[in-house]
Amino acid sequence: MIYRNSIFLLCLFLCQQSLAQESNHSNDVAYLREAKKIKEAALTERNAYAMLRELTQTIGSRLSGSPQAAAAVEWGRQTMQKYGLENVHLQEVLVPHWVRGSVEEAAVLNSPTVGTRPLTVCALGGSVGTPELGLVGEVLEVQDFEQVQALGSKAKGKIIFYNRPMDPTVSTFRAYVGAVDQRTRGAVEAARIGALAALVRSMTTRLDDVPHTGAMRYEEGVPKIPAAAVSTVDANLLSALIKRDGVVRVRLRLSCQTLPDVPSANVVGEITGSEKPDEVILLGGHLDSWDKGQGAHDDGAGCVQAIEALRLLKALGLRPKRTVRAVLFMNEENGSRGGRKYAEVVKKDGPKHIAAIESDAGGFAPRGFSVRSKNDKAINQVARWAYLLQDINAGTIKPGFGGSDVAPLEKLGVTTIGLNVDSNRYFDYHHSDNDTFDKVNERELELGAAAMAILAYVLAMEGV
Amino acid sequence: MIYRNSIFLLCLFLCQQSLAQESNHSNDVAYLREAKKIKEAALTERNAYAMLRELTQTIGSRLSGSPQAAAAVEWGRQTMQKYGLENVHLQEVLVPHWVRGSVEEAAVLNSPTVGTRPLTVCALGGSVGTPELGLVGEVLEVQDFEQVQALGSKAKGKIIFYNRPMDPTVSTFRAYVGAVDQRTRGAVEAARIGALAALVRSMTTRLDDVPHTGAMRYEEGVPKIPAAAVSTVDANLLSALIKRDGVVRVRLRLSCQTLPDVPSANVVGEITGSEKPDEVILLGGHLDSWDKGQGAHDDGAGCVQAIEALRLLKALGLRPKRTVRAVLFMNEENGSRGGRKYAEVVKKDGPKHIAAIESDAGGFAPRGFSVRSKNDKAINQVARWAYLLQDINAGTIKPGFGGSDVAPLEKLGVTTIGLNVDSNRYFDYHHSDNDTFDKVNERELELGAAAMAILAYVLAMEGV
Repeated sequence: MIYRNSIFLLCLFLCQQSLAQESNHSNDVAYLREAKKIKEAALTERNAYAMLRELTQTIGSRLSGSPQAAAAVEWGRQTMQKYGLENVHLQEVLVPHWVRGSVEEAAVLNSPTVGTRPLTVCALGGSVGTPELGLVGEVLEVQDFEQVQALGSKAKGKIIFYNRPMDPTVSTFRAYVGAVDQRTRGAVEAARIGALAALVRSMTTRLDDVPHTGAMRYEEGVPKIPAAAVSTVDANLLSALIKRDGVVRVRLRLSCQTLPDVPSANVVGEITGSEKPDEVILLGGHLDSWDKGQGAHDDGAGCVQAIEALRLLKALGLRPKRTVRAVLFMNEENGSRGGRKYAEVVKKDGPKHIAAIESDAGGFAPRGFSVRSKNDKAINQVARWAYLLQDINAGTIKPGFGGSDVAPLEKLGVTTIGLNVDSNRYFDYHHSDNDTFDKVNERELELGAAAMAILAYVLAMEGV
Repeated sequence: MIYRNSIFLLCLFLCQQSLAQESNHSNDVAYLREAKKIKEAALTERNAYAMLRELTQTIGSRLSGSPQAAAAVEWGRQTMQKYGLENVHLQEVLVPHWVRGSVEEAAVLNSPTVGTRPLTVCALGGSVGTPELGLVGEVLEVQDFEQVQALGSKAKGKIIFYNRPMDPTVSTFRAYVGAVDQRTRGAVEAARIGALAALVRSMTTRLDDVPHTGAMRYEEGVPKIPAAAVSTVDANLLSALIKRDGVVRVRLRLSCQTLPDVPSANVVGEITGSEKPDEVILLGGHLDSWDKGQGAHDDGAGCVQAIEALRLLKALGLRPKRTVRAVLFMNEENGSRGGRKYAEVVKKDGPKHIAAIESDAGGFAPRGFSVRSKNDKAINQVARWAYLLQDINAGTIKPGFGGSDVAPLEKLGVTTIGLNVDSNRYFDYHHSDNDTFDKVNERELELGAAAMAILAYVLAMEGV
């Protein structure tokens, strides 16, 4: 009943909207034609895919501060110049420099029934290393921080093993948000009660034997203990052995460390607006990645889509009224320094940003956009263009998060917009050796680029 | 303008619909609860994926008439029995028995600039073989049948090479429909004007070095000439060499042949309806596949989803009023004998079928259903349940094709319904060695099974 009433009210609302906007947009047909051209060019030329091949196959993973990240910055600059973007420049930013180290990461369990057996692990990003010969401790399994606190003094000298799985019954992103505190805060909470180290079940809904890394944090005044991700296969094994044998020990050796910050950069390029060049619609992704895999879905995809969106507009001779700018942000994964630096510069020196669209959910089939703004009407201002995106099944516009790198712009009144894609496969690859070029589908990637180009174009013409 | 008016009219229509149905469905909340349970069980138990692993890894490809197809029939029967389905039985059907033959398929081109070079090819399903030592002919490239006819007597003794690509700018299924006449009728049209053989560009939008097979037909009174698919990579090469060198010859050797028909079977199992056991809602996929790859997406996925849908209802204690039946059809790929036989039996002996849902577009993320019926109201009768499918992003219900195996039921007044999925990747794998279990994503497959279970359940409760 409630449901039917809601539909009725929704319909009344849509009718009103429809009548109110009746005479506003004589450009509808022209925009539809241009959207079709953009889509066709994206799917015919397949240039985002070619760019992603180049970025992932010749440079590979691009952790902030690494030589590969520096190479990626130069690649971004040259690529933007090659496509004739305007005002191509680097925006310098100091980034953290964490390295996994040269000694092979290793964990070996020891239990009465299986003896010794290696575990598939990798250090979490930001973790300190272990002593050179490793550390050894009994493993205590927990599901959450309450259970950690309940351990009290029993945790002293032990390894805390966080093993709460991602909830398979909800969307993958919601499941991630519901489990990732184990990775980000697990070491701190374990250290508070005297633990030696933390092991964390990998953040994936898939059963695989690949560890998934990601950011963790320390806290002032709490000892820094090493933290590593365990593959879901080995997390299940470890848990089963603890149940069976009671006491299971693990020897863990990590050689990771944090070196002094190094200079790096965001990469910026534009199509200057024909009438309002000082108003900007931003398209972005982040250029850095974790040091596992090739950072193909996360977030090489977003970077090449941002560049490709501008290239498509240029190739089709579509110069919009406002400036459309592509930004490849540095250091999203472990510091978000690029995004913050970018917003600082905009705040200080401008130009005025109208909207900022980020693609950072993988190069999968686009479904729509989520919109966040201080301006209540912004969602409607974006949603009215849904009809241009229906043809590529990307017409679902809803309120929601815009993206990590563009989030700092929110305070400046910028409407932030995230490209939403089919997220079923994202965490199969995320932050692991699985995130490689061959996991990206050409059509899906190009359709995302087309969706970004279409929305950026019409926002640059009509504003928000 | 036209667009805004359409929205207005649509909204008025929806308002009316909404009011008209206001008091019809007091079960809405209960159905929502049951849909949620089905989704959660599917994503937690992940049983369709386990079944698909078993089918594809222990049996593999299952071409009609092959020992593997027979093994798959037995697998289907045992699997349905294992899950406690009722009235499990085989429905015998005589199927064609085409074999690729034991001699390795080969094609070698010979051109002035590159000399001899092998081409990646495979016989099209149903093709005759070549002479034992192969055949040799100059290759003439065409894009369509008009060009073939224009060749006239020049085609005598030549190999006709159909090289019209699938249109990358439209949906993959539309692109397939727009190109597949080259595969199905190419040999007949070439033979009419005296050609020796036909080569056909593989039906995929991807550039890869894998040939994609599929059905071709001969015609009474037209000579039967051999026909083979060429990988898209080698089709491009062949085309480029013809442009450069003028005369390019190919030697082609195929050992395929058609043997006498053999008995095989559709596999049937049910949950008997509690109030109207003689009215059936059918869920199906096809059990046969081509002999390339493992028939994972096409159509192992559909088979395990149909079984899983029934298993889920049973496991959740949901016994609907009408009977829900799973059917694994035999011989969709090269004869559709299973689907036709099934409809014959229903026509003769019943039971009455209300709706038949088929999954045969791959185990990808579900988007909705397409509905075909003689009854104009059927689309609305199905679409009113869209709200139960929104949670898994499968709520788009539209008019359209139901599926090859259930199509023969249309004449009996049955509403046929096809599961629509994200189709961007389908033709990357379709009918080729790429169609293997590892290309199927667990979540996507299970969500499709959940969508089928939810729709079948509510149709079995409420009718169409």
